[in-house]
Amino acid sequence: MSEVAEGRRARGGGGAARRAERTAVRIECAKFIERNIPNLEILNDEALEIIEANAETILEEVGVNFVENPEALKRWKDAGADVTGERVRIPKGLARQLCKTAPSSYVQHARNPERNVTVGGKGLVLAPVYGPPFVRDADGGRRYATLDDFQKFVKLGYMSKWLHHSGGTVCEPTDVPVNKRHLDMLLAHMTLSDKPYMGSVTEPVRAEDSVEMSKILFGSDFVDQNTVMTSLININSPMTFDGIMMGALEVYAKANQAAIISPFIVGGAMAPVTVAGTLTQVMAEVLAGVAYSQLIRQGAPVIFGAFVTSIDMNSGAPTFGTPEAAHITYGAGQLARRMGLPYRSAGSFCGSKLPDAQAAYETSNSLNMGLLAGVNFMLHSCGWLEGGLVSSFEKFVMDADQLGVLHHIAKGIDMSETGQAMDAIREVGPGGHYLGCAHTQANFKQAFWRTELLDYKPFETWDEEGARDTVALAKARVTKLLNDYQKPAIDPAIEEALNEYVAKKKASMPDAFM
Amino acid sequence: MSEVAEGRRARGGGGAARRAERTAVRIECAKFIERNIPNLEILNDEALEIIEANAETILEEVGVNFVENPEALKRWKDAGADVTGERVRIPKGLARQLCKTAPSSYVQHARNPERNVTVGGKGLVLAPVYGPPFVRDADGGRRYATLDDFQKFVKLGYMSKWLHHSGGTVCEPTDVPVNKRHLDMLLAHMTLSDKPYMGSVTEPVRAEDSVEMSKILFGSDFVDQNTVMTSLININSPMTFDGIMMGALEVYAKANQAAIISPFIVGGAMAPVTVAGTLTQVMAEVLAGVAYSQLIRQGAPVIFGAFVTSIDMNSGAPTFGTPEAAHITYGAGQLARRMGLPYRSAGSFCGSKLPDAQAAYETSNSLNMGLLAGVNFMLHSCGWLEGGLVSSFEKFVMDADQLGVLHHIAKGIDMSETGQAMDAIREVGPGGHYLGCAHTQANFKQAFWRTELLDYKPFETWDEEGARDTVALAKARVTKLLNDYQKPAIDPAIEEALNEYVAKKKASMPDAFM
Repeated sequence: MSEVAEGRRARGGGGAARRAERTAVRIECAKFIERNIPNLEILNDEALEIIEANAETILEEVGVNFVENPEALKRWKDAGADVTGERVRIPKGLARQLCKTAPSSYVQHARNPERNVTVGGKGLVLAPVYGPPFVRDADGGRRYATLDDFQKFVKLGYMSKWLHHSGGTVCEPTDVPVNKRHLDMLLAHMTLSDKPYMGSVTEPVRAEDSVEMSKILFGSDFVDQNTVMTSLININSPMTFDGIMMGALEVYAKANQAAIISPFIVGGAMAPVTVAGTLTQVMAEVLAGVAYSQLIRQGAPVIFGAFVTSIDMNSGAPTFGTPEAAHITYGAGQLARRMGLPYRSAGSFCGSKLPDAQAAYETSNSLNMGLLAGVNFMLHSCGWLEGGLVSSFEKFVMDADQLGVLHHIAKGIDMSETGQAMDAIREVGPGGHYLGCAHTQANFKQAFWRTELLDYKPFETWDEEGARDTVALAKARVTKLLNDYQKPAIDPAIEEALNEYVAKKKASMPDAFM
Repeated sequence: MSEVAEGRRARGGGGAARRAERTAVRIECAKFIERNIPNLEILNDEALEIIEANAETILEEVGVNFVENPEALKRWKDAGADVTGERVRIPKGLARQLCKTAPSSYVQHARNPERNVTVGGKGLVLAPVYGPPFVRDADGGRRYATLDDFQKFVKLGYMSKWLHHSGGTVCEPTDVPVNKRHLDMLLAHMTLSDKPYMGSVTEPVRAEDSVEMSKILFGSDFVDQNTVMTSLININSPMTFDGIMMGALEVYAKANQAAIISPFIVGGAMAPVTVAGTLTQVMAEVLAGVAYSQLIRQGAPVIFGAFVTSIDMNSGAPTFGTPEAAHITYGAGQLARRMGLPYRSAGSFCGSKLPDAQAAYETSNSLNMGLLAGVNFMLHSCGWLEGGLVSSFEKFVMDADQLGVLHHIAKGIDMSETGQAMDAIREVGPGGHYLGCAHTQANFKQAFWRTELLDYKPFETWDEEGARDTVALAKARVTKLLNDYQKPAIDPAIEEALNEYVAKKKASMPDAFM
């Protein structure tokens, strides 16, 4: 890869690269959120200690399964766990001790350094929806996702001011063979956006491809020394760590790349029907998973994850934006902070089939709780529909607009003299109005969050313009953003090397669709 | 009124009353929320002290206007304020001292004692939308509201499990003369519902009618000794107390009936464009208003109100569900708690013209912040549309369903042995599932909040059933609730006396439409 790294180091020096950078439109992107507001601490210390103690009891008495992964079993045995078959029982204190080497925060680098994000502390990094096999738009309805859809979502993410991260599987490009689509997905994130991205986790070899392609993009040395990916490692709740996911985790941890260690909980099915019980299981699973990442490489960056939904006990369907999910999200945030780990949860979750009021209630419930629960990395922060089966174009831009609300709430309250506005109150006095006063004129432009989507027009104007609902407004915005899209500048040598890697890899294996 | 009070005391003894009570369907109604979760404290003590000190500075240096109200000016002068013309300047410490006699909480009685609410402390009482001149429904679109609409909204409120309060002007019955409609509105609340209600504030004489009709409903002695109304007294921000509103306040305070003392703020127009400046003005206005209520009658129950929206600096339109409104709502809650007063804010606020995704995002933002800001009385908690110009039938039941989410979040996390669910985790173990385990079977019915509106069906079922959006589901629910509605039992003698009072009053004056 040395010639590629050369190419990268030469960026700004080469003529083609310079030309590309000069002609590129500058796309606005907010810095990741740094909270200046408190979190909601829903549990007291006593309750948290009970949950932590229960989690360690579960690990010691019941244990967890590491399946189809003899190496993992050996690592656990060597570390002092009691291993019987695939069952790993972890003595009290051991997992927590192992977790101590995981960093409390890390920087994920983007190829555009202005887009670097810090994951942890008081930060909140927003990434788009992940995983749906279907897409929906206002014109075409619901259909299987394609690579073309995938690329459009990456472009929309790049054009979305409040989105800090390009994400991973923004939808499944089902028209590309299963064993090759990760290559096209990575290529899209790397070339159509300059925001940070996620690696593939569906096979260890695909995680290796993710690392290799990142080395082309960033240079080998840079990737050896820095974190350039955050990838999603799901735990098969309850308490099962499968060989494929752990294989991907092993690849990433060895390469010092970040992983979200994330129980995948549908309360009532994969966890108890109670909140405290679910938190106990989440805590046990994360303790085991994070400890395992540190057995692979001490200091490997990891995130305390909690994907949480509950089940509708009538239909068996997962439900979103519910009070139980809020409780678990708040509680898990406290547990993550007590472990000193970055925290991933919440998102634009909804069960609705359409980007309608149900979708927005559920999403807004989830986004608000995510902000106040101290989430550091919010996957699925926009575009999620129908319980995660669908990536919605319209909902993507609708949610992305609401992410601006989170940014402004997180700023907290300005208590400066300008913020206190005593001169304005004195100037205006009883019965006056503030529209024209000096303080308003000086500050109104920055004063309030402003939507780029929602309608505030007078009824008559709105009615004359076609009485459009939010979906109609969003449809127009999707079209505008895709029309305005311009690819961010990239060193042509790097892009060529990436294309070549993808082509070679694709040619090296037969198509697989399962 | 003595014969009516007799009638009331005899309730349960008379044959007609007994028959009415026996045949009445029992309508489920949740108890008002008692929070078992913390509030979000967005400002630290230093910031709160600055705002409080600034508010007192404003009261002393700038003062407030009590317009067209010579009696009020005399009261203030006697209390030690500096009165020049209609301007009342209140020396530091005086307003705060006067506020000390206002109770920290009070019980508002309903004619059905099971529906009594406690306003204050950790409680949250939910009341419906107030004030819109228009209504909207899915079939008829947007039109002027009528008394028939008003009665339907009262019925929907009575049928809404999560709504504790029947409210006041759920819409303006514009087909009834302005000077008579309060009588029909009160009659509807008193006879079509048995939940607590609000009194009229549009003229002092209408407040007196509200007290008189309440005496018929509850008995004179009962009303003398108890609070049976909570009414909305708006301040004309900035810092103006008009004679009509204060006249109504005087009637209610003298009768020991509760009033919400509520600045009506559109940030950037009626208050500074900054949050801390707006909080300062809100604090000054509430201090003056609550102090005045205590000059009328020490111990009169009052609520610290804050109706807050900000202006879209492009169009001048009010905006809802914004981050600035959230900041002010959180901050004002802290100020109210430091004064030891119940707090009113938030609601199903939105600017959208339709009950679509925009409406739901904005509403959900506002409902969530209302819960976490420690609001004790939430007016407008369901049915608000288009910046308060419209009461929406569909949105009423949509929002009312979401109020169930607030109830369940507020319950907090069960840390009992059942909540901890250790037996369930032990029983199920790695790789199992919880659906059939004993703990799930024993607890699933109460475990999760359940919607009565939203759709959780599989895609195919939903599609076959017509692919209905939230509005279509809500329309069906409105129809069902109105069909299922049965009037709560009422002593026929009382109802007759109420009808007689309304008829006599109406006959005593010419119609007025302005």
